[in-house]
Amino acid sequence: MAMVRAPIFAQLMANTNNGFYQQDIISVRQFDRVKLDYIFGVAEEMRHMVQQIGSADLLRGRVLANLFYEPSTRTSSSFMAAMQRLGGSVIPINEVRYSSVTKGESLPDTVRTLECYADIIVLRHPEVGSAQIAADYASKPVINAGDGTGEHPTQALLDLFTIQEEIGRIDGLKVAMVGDLKYGRTVHSLTRLLSLFDVALVFVSPEVLRLPRELVDEVKAKGLPFSEHEDVAEVVADVDVLYVTRVQRERFEDESLYEKVKDCYVITPELLKRAKERMIVMHPLPRVNEISYEVDRDPRAAYFRQMANGMYIRMALLAAVLGRA
Amino acid sequence: MAMVRAPIFAQLMANTNNGFYQQDIISVRQFDRVKLDYIFGVAEEMRHMVQQIGSADLLRGRVLANLFYEPSTRTSSSFMAAMQRLGGSVIPINEVRYSSVTKGESLPDTVRTLECYADIIVLRHPEVGSAQIAADYASKPVINAGDGTGEHPTQALLDLFTIQEEIGRIDGLKVAMVGDLKYGRTVHSLTRLLSLFDVALVFVSPEVLRLPRELVDEVKAKGLPFSEHEDVAEVVADVDVLYVTRVQRERFEDESLYEKVKDCYVITPELLKRAKERMIVMHPLPRVNEISYEVDRDPRAAYFRQMANGMYIRMALLAAVLGRA
Amino acid sequence: MAMVRAPIFAQLMANTNNGFYQQDIISVRQFDRVKLDYIFGVAEEMRHMVQQIGSADLLRGRVLANLFYEPSTRTSSSFMAAMQRLGGSVIPINEVRYSSVTKGESLPDTVRTLECYADIIVLRHPEVGSAQIAADYASKPVINAGDGTGEHPTQALLDLFTIQEEIGRIDGLKVAMVGDLKYGRTVHSLTRLLSLFDVALVFVSPEVLRLPRELVDEVKAKGLPFSEHEDVAEVVADVDVLYVTRVQRERFEDESLYEKVKDCYVITPELLKRAKERMIVMHPLPRVNEISYEVDRDPRAAYFRQMANGMYIRMALLAAVLGRA
Repeated sequence: MAMVRAPIFAQLMANTNNGFYQQDIISVRQFDRVKLDYIFGVAEEMRHMVQQIGSADLLRGRVLANLFYEPSTRTSSSFMAAMQRLGGSVIPINEVRYSSVTKGESLPDTVRTLECYADIIVLRHPEVGSAQIAADYASKPVINAGDGTGEHPTQALLDLFTIQEEIGRIDGLKVAMVGDLKYGRTVHSLTRLLSLFDVALVFVSPEVLRLPRELVDEVKAKGLPFSEHEDVAEVVADVDVLYVTRVQRERFEDESLYEKVKDCYVITPELLKRAKERMIVMHPLPRVNEISYEVDRDPRAAYFRQMANGMYIRMALLAAVLGRA
Repeated sequence: MAMVRAPIFAQLMANTNNGFYQQDIISVRQFDRVKLDYIFGVAEEMRHMVQQIGSADLLRGRVLANLFYEPSTRTSSSFMAAMQRLGGSVIPINEVRYSSVTKGESLPDTVRTLECYADIIVLRHPEVGSAQIAADYASKPVINAGDGTGEHPTQALLDLFTIQEEIGRIDGLKVAMVGDLKYGRTVHSLTRLLSLFDVALVFVSPEVLRLPRELVDEVKAKGLPFSEHEDVAEVVADVDVLYVTRVQRERFEDESLYEKVKDCYVITPELLKRAKERMIVMHPLPRVNEISYEVDRDPRAAYFRQMANGMYIRMALLAAVLGRA
Repeated sequence: MAMVRAPIFAQLMANTNNGFYQQDIISVRQFDRVKLDYIFGVAEEMRHMVQQIGSADLLRGRVLANLFYEPSTRTSSSFMAAMQRLGGSVIPINEVRYSSVTKGESLPDTVRTLECYADIIVLRHPEVGSAQIAADYASKPVINAGDGTGEHPTQALLDLFTIQEEIGRIDGLKVAMVGDLKYGRTVHSLTRLLSLFDVALVFVSPEVLRLPRELVDEVKAKGLPFSEHEDVAEVVADVDVLYVTRVQRERFEDESLYEKVKDCYVITPELLKRAKERMIVMHPLPRVNEISYEVDRDPRAAYFRQMANGMYIRMALLAAVLGRA
C-alpha cells in the first residue's frame, strides 16, 4: 500500500502537561483562575490566527463527533467551525430522531461506538447529568455542549472571555445579569465563574424569576458584593456589563403580571443613553425582543462579537484537550 | 502554543480586482457579458482541474456556511462539493426545523451569527427577497441559492454555461424554453441572462402557463426575435437548445385541460428524431416524466453534464468571491 | 487564475490492478479468499496507521457522497470517519425525507446527479436490490451500505475481519450465530463469507427464527460441519466465536412462546463462565438487552473493537476502490 508510515508519534509531540490533555470538559466547576488564564490565552491566539490567516493545521487528521440529541444551530455550528479552522474534520450527528438512538440504544453504547471513529466527542443532550455519564463510559474526551437544565460550560467560558476581551480585565467590574435568572442555565454558570474573581454582581429579574437561593448563597460565601433588583433602569448607569437573557411569558402563571413587568427587561437605545460610555451589552442569543434591533449599531452591543468568541474558546478547548495547545 | 504564525497575509494575496471579491451574488441582474465571460472562464478552468486532478487547495482553511431553510439535495450537495474540491470546509445547516431559527430567531440574527464562524454564506430560503435581506445584514458575502419564487442565480449561470460548453457559443443560437414558463424560476432567470446575447427565443407552454408579460416585454425591449407556441413538436426541428421544465397537474384548474395538453411537453426519442444532430436537451432536474428515460442515452441529452457544470460554476463563484480566482 | 495546474495524473498513479479499482461493492458474493486477504491486509495497515498517526492523505481531494435513505448513525458515521481519516471529504445526505428524492425523483437520477459531484457513492436504501440498480446507472463506484433485507457487505466484512484480528485465524474455528437467524441480514452475509473457510458452524435460535433452508443448503453444499440448537447454553462451552443478534418480540405470533424462550438468547457473565478463555462475543449493535452490560468488562467482549474494525474495513474499501491501496 502506498501509505506513508513515517513514525510521526503524535502522542509524543503532544503537550500533555497543559492540565487539559485528554480531559473531559463537563462543568465550570473544573475551572480555576489558572485554567481560565490558560484557555483565554490560547483563545486569544486563536482569534489572532483566524483574523490573520483564517485557519491552522493543528488538528489535521483529527475527527470530532458532534453529537446533538437536541437542536442547537449556534452551538453545533460553532464547534464544527472550530474543528474545521484547526484543520480537523467533523462527523455531525444532528438527526438523532432518525438514528439508532431512537431504536432504544443507550447513551453509553452510542458514545462507545462513536469513540471508535472519532478522537473527541461533543455532546448536547436534554437530560441533566448525561454529559457525565457519557464521560464515565468513554475513554476518549467528552465536551459537554449543554445537558438540559444542567451545565453548558463552553457558553460560560465564552461569556467570561468576552468580558475580558472587551474590557481588558474581570477583577473590579460590576456585572449585571438581567432577565430569567431562575431557569437561565447560562446565568448560573457565568455567576459561578465570575465568583472566582473580585467582582460586584447585580441581579435584575421579576420576582418570580429570581436567582435560586443556593446560588445566592454561593455568592455570599465568596464574600462578593451583590444586589437584587426588579428593573434594569435602576442599575444601567452603574454597570460595566449588562448580561441580558429572555423573560418568557410561559414562566408566569399570571399573564397580567408578565404584561406589567416585561418592559423592565428590554434593552433600548434610550435606556443605554444612561449607561457608561465604556460598558458592554451581552446576550447568549437567540434573542426575541429583549434587545431592540436599534441597539445593534451601538458599539457597546457585544453580542455578535460574543458569538465569534465562542468559536475561539471552542478552538482553544479542542486544541488543549487534544494536546495541541 | 505550537501554532505557526507566519504572516501569510491572505488578504494581500487575494485577487481583489476581479469584480466579485467579497461581493454578494443575489440576482442575475448583477451580471453583464464581461462578468459572465470571467466566471465562465474560471468555471472552465475548474472543470479541467477536477477532471485532471480532482481538487485544488485554493480555499484551504476557508469555511462555508450552507444555510438551507428548505430542502434541496441537489443545490446543497453541489455547493458542498464545490467548496470541498477547493480545499475548503462546510458547515451544513439543513435541519432548520430543529434549529434556533424555529425558535423565532430572525434571519438577520442567524446570518450575523453564522458569519462569526464562516467566511461566506450560501442561503436557500422560501421567501422572495430573503437573500437580499441577509446580504444587507451580513458583512461577509452571501450567495443566493434560491429565494422562493424570486431568483436562483447560480442555476441560471450554470444553465447558460452549459449552453456555451456544449455548443461552443451563445450568440446566434435559437433557444426553446418548454413547459411551465409562468412559474418556472429557472426559465425566468435564464431568459434574462440570454437577453444579454444575440439569440432567438422560443417559448413553448400551455396557454395557462405562458411566460409572464413583463418578461415578454423585457425580451421585446432588447429587440430579440421570439415566438410562442403550445406544442414542442412545432419547434423541435429548428432549435439549438431545448430547455425543458415540468408541467404540473396542480397548475390547471380544469384537469381535462391538463390531460389534453400534457403530451405536448414530453420529450421522447421519437420527437428528437426530428431535432438537429447538434442540439442539446437541458433540464434543471429533478424530472418526473417530462423527459423519457430512453432519451438519456441520446448524446444530445445534456442534463447530467448540466449538473456537473453546476459544481464548476459554484466553484468559480466561491473562488472569485473569496479572491482566489 | 492562481491555480496550480501541474499534471499530477492521479489516474496514472492509481493502483488499478488491485481487483477493486473503480468496482462496485454490492454483495459478499463478490469476495473470494484472495480478495478477502487483500482487503484484510489493507484494513490492518489502516488500523496501525490510525493508532499511530490518526490519519493519512491517501484520498485528499476526493469526495464521498454518503446517501442514506434510512437512518443509520453507526454505518454513516463509520463511512464518514473512514473517508475523513484518509484525507477525503464527505457530502452527507441523511435527511432524504426533505430532499428531492421525496418529490418523486428516481434513484437512478439521484445517483447520476450525485456522481457529478462525488468520486464514490455509499448508498443505504430500504429496498432489496436498490444498490445494484444504483450501480447499474452510476459510472462512479457504488458501495452498498445495506439494501433492506438484502445485503450489507461491509458489515459482513468487518465481522469476519474482527474474527481474524481477534483470534488470528479463521480456518479451524467453531463459530456460533445466536438469535434471529431467519431475518438477520448480518447473519446471512457472515455465514456466506465463513463458508469460504474451513469452519464449523453452530446455529442457535428459536424454532420460528431458524436459518432459512436455502442458506442451510449452501452450508451443506460446501461440506461444512454444522448443527442447530435452541439454547445458547448448550453450545457456549465449545465455541470460538459467539455472534449475537437480537430476538425481537414482534417476530412471535404467540407472545407466550416469546416469554418462554427469550432468556435462552441473553448473554450474561454467568453464561460466559462456561465459555473458553480464548473466545470472543460479537454483536453488530445496537443491542437492547441481549448482552448484559456486565459482559462489557469481559476481555472477550469484542463488540466495540468490532465497531472500530468497521472503520478500518471501510477505509480499506474506499482506498482500494479509488486506487490508493
